[in-house]
Amino acid sequence: MEIQAVTMILIKTMNKSLLSFVGIFFVFLVTAQDGSSLWLGYSILENETERAAYAESLQFISFSDSTERMQLASKELQKGLQGLLGNSPHEKKKLPNQKGMYGVQLQLDEDLTLSKEGFEIEYTPQGTTIKAKKDLGILYGVYAFLREMQLRKPEPFTVVDQPKVKIRMLNHWDNANGTVERGYAGSSIWKWFELPYRLDPRYEDYARANAALGINGVTLNNVNASSRFLTSEYLEKIKALADVFRPYGIQIYISVNFRSPKTLGGLATSDPLDPAVRKWWKDKTREIHQYIPDFGGFLVKANSEGEPGPQDYGRTHKDGANMLADALQGYEGIVIWRAFVYKADPNGDRFKEAYKQFKPLDGTFDPKVIVQVKNGPIDFMPREPFHPLFGALPNTPLAMEFQITQEYLGQATHWVYLGGMYQECLRSDTYAKGPGSSVAKVIDGSLFEHEISLMAGVANTGSDANWTGHPMGQSNWYAFGRLAWNPEMDAATIAKEWVVQSLSRKEEAVSTLTDLMMSSHATYVKYTYPLGLHHMMGEGHHYGPQPWLDKSGRPDWTSVYYHRASASGIGFDRTGNYSDALDLYHPEVQENWKDPQSCSLDYLLWFHHLPWDFKLNTGNTLWDELITRYYEGVAEVEQMSTRWESVQAQIPSPIYENIRGRLKIQAKEALWWRDACTLYFKEFSQLPIPEGLTPPSRTLEEVKKLEAIYHLR
Amino acid sequence: MEIQAVTMILIKTMNKSLLSFVGIFFVFLVTAQDGSSLWLGYSILENETERAAYAESLQFISFSDSTERMQLASKELQKGLQGLLGNSPHEKKKLPNQKGMYGVQLQLDEDLTLSKEGFEIEYTPQGTTIKAKKDLGILYGVYAFLREMQLRKPEPFTVVDQPKVKIRMLNHWDNANGTVERGYAGSSIWKWFELPYRLDPRYEDYARANAALGINGVTLNNVNASSRFLTSEYLEKIKALADVFRPYGIQIYISVNFRSPKTLGGLATSDPLDPAVRKWWKDKTREIHQYIPDFGGFLVKANSEGEPGPQDYGRTHKDGANMLADALQGYEGIVIWRAFVYKADPNGDRFKEAYKQFKPLDGTFDPKVIVQVKNGPIDFMPREPFHPLFGALPNTPLAMEFQITQEYLGQATHWVYLGGMYQECLRSDTYAKGPGSSVAKVIDGSLFEHEISLMAGVANTGSDANWTGHPMGQSNWYAFGRLAWNPEMDAATIAKEWVVQSLSRKEEAVSTLTDLMMSSHATYVKYTYPLGLHHMMGEGHHYGPQPWLDKSGRPDWTSVYYHRASASGIGFDRTGNYSDALDLYHPEVQENWKDPQSCSLDYLLWFHHLPWDFKLNTGNTLWDELITRYYEGVAEVEQMSTRWESVQAQIPSPIYENIRGRLKIQAKEALWWRDACTLYFKEFSQLPIPEGLTPPSRTLEEVKKLEAIYHLR
Repeated sequence: MEIQAVTMILIKTMNKSLLSFVGIFFVFLVTAQDGSSLWLGYSILENETERAAYAESLQFISFSDSTERMQLASKELQKGLQGLLGNSPHEKKKLPNQKGMYGVQLQLDEDLTLSKEGFEIEYTPQGTTIKAKKDLGILYGVYAFLREMQLRKPEPFTVVDQPKVKIRMLNHWDNANGTVERGYAGSSIWKWFELPYRLDPRYEDYARANAALGINGVTLNNVNASSRFLTSEYLEKIKALADVFRPYGIQIYISVNFRSPKTLGGLATSDPLDPAVRKWWKDKTREIHQYIPDFGGFLVKANSEGEPGPQDYGRTHKDGANMLADALQGYEGIVIWRAFVYKADPNGDRFKEAYKQFKPLDGTFDPKVIVQVKNGPIDFMPREPFHPLFGALPNTPLAMEFQITQEYLGQATHWVYLGGMYQECLRSDTYAKGPGSSVAKVIDGSLFEHEISLMAGVANTGSDANWTGHPMGQSNWYAFGRLAWNPEMDAATIAKEWVVQSLSRKEEAVSTLTDLMMSSHATYVKYTYPLGLHHMMGEGHHYGPQPWLDKSGRPDWTSVYYHRASASGIGFDRTGNYSDALDLYHPEVQENWKDPQSCSLDYLLWFHHLPWDFKLNTGNTLWDELITRYYEGVAEVEQMSTRWESVQAQIPSPIYENIRGRLKIQAKEALWWRDACTLYFKEFSQLPIPEGLTPPSRTLEEVKKLEAIYHLR
Repeated sequence: MEIQAVTMILIKTMNKSLLSFVGIFFVFLVTAQDGSSLWLGYSILENETERAAYAESLQFISFSDSTERMQLASKELQKGLQGLLGNSPHEKKKLPNQKGMYGVQLQLDEDLTLSKEGFEIEYTPQGTTIKAKKDLGILYGVYAFLREMQLRKPEPFTVVDQPKVKIRMLNHWDNANGTVERGYAGSSIWKWFELPYRLDPRYEDYARANAALGINGVTLNNVNASSRFLTSEYLEKIKALADVFRPYGIQIYISVNFRSPKTLGGLATSDPLDPAVRKWWKDKTREIHQYIPDFGGFLVKANSEGEPGPQDYGRTHKDGANMLADALQGYEGIVIWRAFVYKADPNGDRFKEAYKQFKPLDGTFDPKVIVQVKNGPIDFMPREPFHPLFGALPNTPLAMEFQITQEYLGQATHWVYLGGMYQECLRSDTYAKGPGSSVAKVIDGSLFEHEISLMAGVANTGSDANWTGHPMGQSNWYAFGRLAWNPEMDAATIAKEWVVQSLSRKEEAVSTLTDLMMSSHATYVKYTYPLGLHHMMGEGHHYGPQPWLDKSGRPDWTSVYYHRASASGIGFDRTGNYSDALDLYHPEVQENWKDPQSCSLDYLLWFHHLPWDFKLNTGNTLWDELITRYYEGVAEVEQMSTRWESVQAQIPSPIYENIRGRLKIQAKEALWWRDACTLYFKEFSQLPIPEGLTPPSRTLEEVKKLEAIYHLR
């Protein structure tokens, strides 16, 4: 909830007839300080001179065309200015764009050499223009202008910008029953039982927050999809959401269950080559468009982790995807087919599975199909090498799937800013067309010249007042959105943008918080998965450490499958000596990782199984380095707390207290990870905790019990 | 979130040295109007004269003793007065209690003839005293005073009150994973992953709202209990909540899993007579008290719906309950043992099960045990006859368990005020000791002179900003709390109290809304379960109608088990001709229901299986009456909408819109119930829809598909 800034003046009557002036108190009741307004808080600019300068130059808003979205853009600008500059009114007038007008002109201009979502901002103290070819560009320009106002001084500036990726999308893993798979911020923000008749005001808040980042697509439901969402009852509900989102330029996508022709249509099969099945999807697609004419398309998780798919009928991913593409012929929508597939082979290497299945299909997909690939080859581990499919399918557009929700990254109790991790992946060079063939260029379609391009983030939103549980989770939603717009943006710049708009504009706070954010991911990796360890979390719940997990529904759901610790050493050998997953990369990429002596320590155990006493270039043995990193991680969390406390005065108090509490939990749990992993690996290495470090004060058995709690009924 | 009322006066300086008065604008920024402040909104009293009169008489607050809770009471009074009267300061001074003091005196007085939670309020325009024996009485008195201020005029009044029931408790069916069993207002309000270090500010909001009603006990977790809550990790979290609640007089109870000695303690058995098991519970109880010295006790669902219990080891409920009571010897806490037990017998009558198992145990329980009985014999059906156990166990204290969450009452999309339903049950006469032996007197312990007395409500709270999903759900929490304090209160009075404090003080709105609330339950029953039908909801999800459900995990989970519709008629014969459940009641009670000619129509099919053409005293046949009621129910929902719209101007707009949307859903779903049930029963009766009523425009098959949606994966 947003409260307007109010100037309150207290007057005391000394006697009934005379007013005597006693004192003036300025009380700024700014935005509710619980984080609910995200990056749209628009708290008042503290510097009075700058505020006055802006106020003088921004006395009115005019717009060239009265489309619904132009009016929305003007309304958004008014809201923002009202917050930033105080309670000043902003009239709208239809005025020509000219210097000396002391106002803002929102202007459509077909002649601009920009894409349909691009915009051009020119601010001078005498007047401001925001131009775009289309009204969505104007809306994006307005949000950008409000952002720039908070980052700059009231001095002339020009910004010309347009998105590099066509579809910038959130994937919600939200279930029909209101739960969120891997959600840590309360229940789903979609109130299915209230739709279509009651529209929660948060739907519009959500749309605004996304539009401010340029996010233009939303898949509403979990990829482990219920057919329920394709019934007319639910399409009516989805339509209601689409109508709220449309003015903000956001299109709706639906995750579909491949078995729907059977479950919903009563057909005998869901074989994608069966004519009745193809007809069923065509009819269903037509029906969807009656509700949502600008329907975005289908997202499909098929033949993955038990979900149905074309392979159930002896067909391929291509057959399944192309059938859905066929149903979408004549419409705008696309098919997003996930590449997250793997099979339960104790002697295999899950790292290679998606590549094996999709590489041979390159070039066989319908032009309406895009294949969505997770950033790394396993599953959103805290640090993964980029997925070997990036760069490997020149004839197939590939979408990036990042995870914003922190399934393996401390969920809602650990502060981990993901901007740097996303950036590392996007900047990785695939060498697919020689040096400079970054993952970003694969994703934005430029490397292989694809029409469609897409970046998806698995949302971390929920019903909590602050949307993301951990207040810092907001920064990951923000960073995802900004990188989807421009995958080459700098993570630290994004962090700073977020802090300034969401937390504090005080210089010291901005610098401390940006620092803290940028180092937070490395800290998390140190106390959980140092040196390239991966996949050792508690079974099922994925919370806390369980490196000892050696039995599960499938071998590649255990921990021992990945770390392979034994008396002889630790790590997964992915060189030619064992799985040879390294071979899936271009030779230049292999070069980075193939030699354990020169391999980046961040990826060492991703690719090598090494003896405990292996000598690293740090001068330490592998064992000493591993344990030292665990200890460093824990110490760094303590430092985070201290640094956080140093900015207390510059942060809204509810958010300060909220994060202070969470940092205490993080400290406790960092210790949990450290003790669990060091005690467990010590059983194999039989080596002492390195000198200078205090050994854990508890036993391995005691630590094991902590994880076991989460399996108690 | 709550915003203080602010009086804003705008001043314009005409030149630098002179203040010229231009105008005064009163801007009342009242409580956030989304319902988040429940009945503690304290929006400003609209009548200026009354406000001034109150302000004059309430110029300061003084208190006789400086206990933590006295200070809290004073703080609560300040908050309330600040809201009701505007931004007026209220100093605290230590002053003697005297007329002419123009202030409030909070005064402990050991000599009062009141229970330790009772209070005495004396308000005069010249001065106010709130007296109590204990500081908790003072706190209750403060909340009562603030309530009375909103209900009365500033004229002298005296209120002397004390609770009739000793333990007034919410039962949360909240799970460790954050979901809420039968919860329809988002996720759990307990953030287990954040505790003990981060305390959500809502914990205190929750405590205040409960204390204002006199609720003094909370069971935090689901009766289908996880052992997790008895680990030291979780006891530390629970302690943090207990510390927040303690100043508000609220004690914490834990639902326990009877198998805990095995799962947590590693014992070979959980047999309640096994010495090692008994020792385990003793040790665990001691450990709990190290965290929570004023621990309230254990709530147990045993040998019910698959939960473990003493019968697993050939023991009885008495053995189980008394073992836990033994573990609590020397401590204040008690054992609450649920009587909700029944077995899967297709030829039996679930109605009789609890009675059968518990009647023989009367008098065998430890004095620390209280048996908690649901209001009716089946399971929180929209309308049930009172449970036959009430009055049948003179030697065992019995607790009432009402359901506040609307599992079978439209969940969060139907407006159903439950005050009248609770009242009907509490006022039912058991005749256990002759006329006047009401259920209320069984519950408050007076009828059979028991030390312990308890009323529990299954909470409807969740993470939604307004706590209860449907804004009207708040009134059910409120009504439960007031009736737990005094089971003889009047439901309409309570409704009015709630409206005045939570929604509107405008006379027309108060009267319309109280009316709407009071008729809402009867309306719901008409379009779902008229004439005493019961248990025909959708399987598992319990949403919408499924009278055709004839197969389930057990026979007594189907619908046909209960309505027994056939060509020959409908209803469950519970007279001597079939199950004879009626015989469990005192003869005077049987008299009410045993003759189908004189049986109240509200309970007709609870006790009788009657032919479709059975002639009722309304002049209609059973069939015509049944169908007519379904149609009337639907029409009444339309009227609710119209009446709701009539008070639009007098209701905070977000709440108005919220409920308007939900009423549309309710209208749609009332039609769903009507069509489902009339079309289905028509298959048996083979009779036409009565003249003057338009037959459903859809087929039974079409309606069946609507419920089937909720089973789609």
